[in-house]
Amino acid sequence: MKILLPDTMPLDPALPEGWEAVEVDARAPIPAAHHDAEAIVLWGPSRSHLESAARDLTGVRLVQSLSAGVENIVAAGFRDGAVVTTGAGLHSLTVAEHTVGLVLALLRSLPASLAAQSRHEWDRSIGGLQPLNPPERLNSLVGAEVLIWGFGQIGQTVAPVLAGLGAHVRGVARSAGERSGFEVIAEADVAAALPATDVLIDILPATGSTAHAIDAAVLDALPDRAVVVNVGRGATVDQAALREALVAGTIGGAALDVTDPEPLPQDDPLWDAPRLIITPHSAGGKPVGADDRIAENLRRLDAGEELLHPAG
Amino acid sequence: MKILLPDTMPLDPALPEGWEAVEVDARAPIPAAHHDAEAIVLWGPSRSHLESAARDLTGVRLVQSLSAGVENIVAAGFRDGAVVTTGAGLHSLTVAEHTVGLVLALLRSLPASLAAQSRHEWDRSIGGLQPLNPPERLNSLVGAEVLIWGFGQIGQTVAPVLAGLGAHVRGVARSAGERSGFEVIAEADVAAALPATDVLIDILPATGSTAHAIDAAVLDALPDRAVVVNVGRGATVDQAALREALVAGTIGGAALDVTDPEPLPQDDPLWDAPRLIITPHSAGGKPVGADDRIAENLRRLDAGEELLHPAG
Ligand SMILES: NC(=O)c1ccc[n+]([C@@H]2O[C@H](COP(=O)([O-])OP(=O)(O)OC[C@H]3O[C@@H](n4cnc5c(N)ncnc54)[C@H](OP(=O)(O)O)[C@@H]3O)[C@@H](O)[C@H]2O)c1
Ligand SMILES: NC(=O)c1ccc[n+]([C@@H]2O[C@H](COP(=O)([O-])OP(=O)(O)OC[C@H]3O[C@@H](n4cnc5c(N)ncnc54)[C@H](OP(=O)(O)O)[C@@H]3O)[C@@H](O)[C@H]2O)c1
Repeated sequence: MKILLPDTMPLDPALPEGWEAVEVDARAPIPAAHHDAEAIVLWGPSRSHLESAARDLTGVRLVQSLSAGVENIVAAGFRDGAVVTTGAGLHSLTVAEHTVGLVLALLRSLPASLAAQSRHEWDRSIGGLQPLNPPERLNSLVGAEVLIWGFGQIGQTVAPVLAGLGAHVRGVARSAGERSGFEVIAEADVAAALPATDVLIDILPATGSTAHAIDAAVLDALPDRAVVVNVGRGATVDQAALREALVAGTIGGAALDVTDPEPLPQDDPLWDAPRLIITPHSAGGKPVGADDRIAENLRRLDAGEELLHPAG
Repeated sequence: MKILLPDTMPLDPALPEGWEAVEVDARAPIPAAHHDAEAIVLWGPSRSHLESAARDLTGVRLVQSLSAGVENIVAAGFRDGAVVTTGAGLHSLTVAEHTVGLVLALLRSLPASLAAQSRHEWDRSIGGLQPLNPPERLNSLVGAEVLIWGFGQIGQTVAPVLAGLGAHVRGVARSAGERSGFEVIAEADVAAALPATDVLIDILPATGSTAHAIDAAVLDALPDRAVVVNVGRGATVDQAALREALVAGTIGGAALDVTDPEPLPQDDPLWDAPRLIITPHSAGGKPVGADDRIAENLRRLDAGEELLHPAG
């Protein structure tokens, strides 16, 4: 049995007995010699590759994506007998890492430090003796109130890191409760939590119900010193409202790793919003543990067990 | 009995029975009416304040600094019966936080993202699909080898945070062993560890034996993709050698929160070194838990118990 591996990242899964791996160009249609593959791994496929896979792999049983979001793969229309599985969890550590980096860049005034550095200036308004988190400016996670909106795999990976640095962390999800030892508020009750929130982190997927979850009303409800970070999906934030809040000074700062659309158009006014950091969707993009995931799902496929993270 | 509190930060310690607190100007000599104080807290004292305290407080028994380093206070020459205590530990969380921020700013290419943002450019060399930590460039803590040189209170606070993000962390101290669950190498054996180090973090105090601990030989021994972060003291790094390594490309990047001297002179070539982040000694400067420390040392003073963190 044959599994096709993409050439877009180094992969070397420990294959179960009876499987052989073939590397293919993920940016091109699949060569006829490999249309007999029974499994395929997708990572950054071009449109022609994806279309070819869906059309030509007539005996495919496992379509293993390494991405968290697989809307385009499901939409490509693989044969009925094929199961599409997602790369859920493979990005939790890297996205958590980037999230922490963005939060700290805002709180520790890194953009202002870099600007002062370019002027050869030792900025005494940033360094030396400082009050801890004065009402007008957040400068540390110590004692800060953090709210993570979208408290799934990534949120629960970020939370203990921020808590370890002295923050008080709560989550927001569709239902309330306790997860990984953190208090989780239901989305319906989020408004009550905002006035006491210092750091609002958006790790929401893009769905019908999450569009503009962070809108003018949410931003208004936050304290003026609060910072907002989005590593979920661009569509979950009303970017015009965010820009207005930054310009008006009714929030302290923001950082976006995802925007709507992507790439952000050259002439979008968001680029120049004050106290805003934009990174080019660089949080994830580096699956961790892909080999193990592939090997395990092949093993489960052979054994007729339920696959890890089927789409849907 | 009277304790003098500085006006340089808000303080409200729970005083033991029999003590009264008086706030004084930490930038001026101490008024004659308060020369009877038996304890004083120092935070950012001016030279005249410190000289006055040492000279005028003829009955002082406790000199509680909120700084980690108290060389200048010891040198001021308080009376023999006075014990100088340091603010050791009060800065561990905030310095750890800044350290994590600097490491992630380097690994996540924040300066390059900000530069691209100012050009309204979505930089595809930073975002999207990326290999994880390719040989030529470190882009994540996941699987990274971190060495923390100076593995005391701050180092042991940083270590679990970086480990929680997927790094393998070891410490370097004067003696080898295990601390807080992390392997610690003796300083004498550090050379052997450098070629496999991705992130070298300097949290050393400035002493005779730590001067230029990070010199040209250490920088040479690091892989070309390695990054160096100094949050200890400027004198522990040979800054000319660091600049040369950055210019030559024999290290991947660096971040300094402390320099030698401070402030860094306007015409120092270090300001413009490539892939270098300078922050103006902004890691600490915000004591956390000062009230409790003051109250506890007063209680111990009254009870004749050993004080917390005496200098020397
Ligand atoms: N920036 C990047 O590079 C990058 C990389 C990977 C992923 N991401 C984004 O991160 C998202 C989250 O990833 P994950 O692995 O953490 O996913 P996950 O484990 O599925 O968690 C999603 C979380 O969002 C919550 N949620 C969904 N709809 C919601 C709503 N309407 N209101 C409130 N909460 C809602 C879910 O709530 P319940 O728990 O109640 O269901 C869950 O807590 C992905 O969907 C993707 O958009 C970004
Ligand atoms: N950037 C800032 O804003 C800021 C703020 C506060 C403090 N700091 C700096 O951070 C330093 C460390 O603070 P801390 O609270 O972690 O101090 P600490 O608990 O005293 O730890 C100091 C560490 O350095 C090690 N060390 C000392 N001399 C050494 C040598 N010659 N070779 C190898 N290791 C040596 C010690 O080794 P042993 O354990 O073997 O003794 C110990 O592990 C302070 O001294 C200060 O310079 C900076």
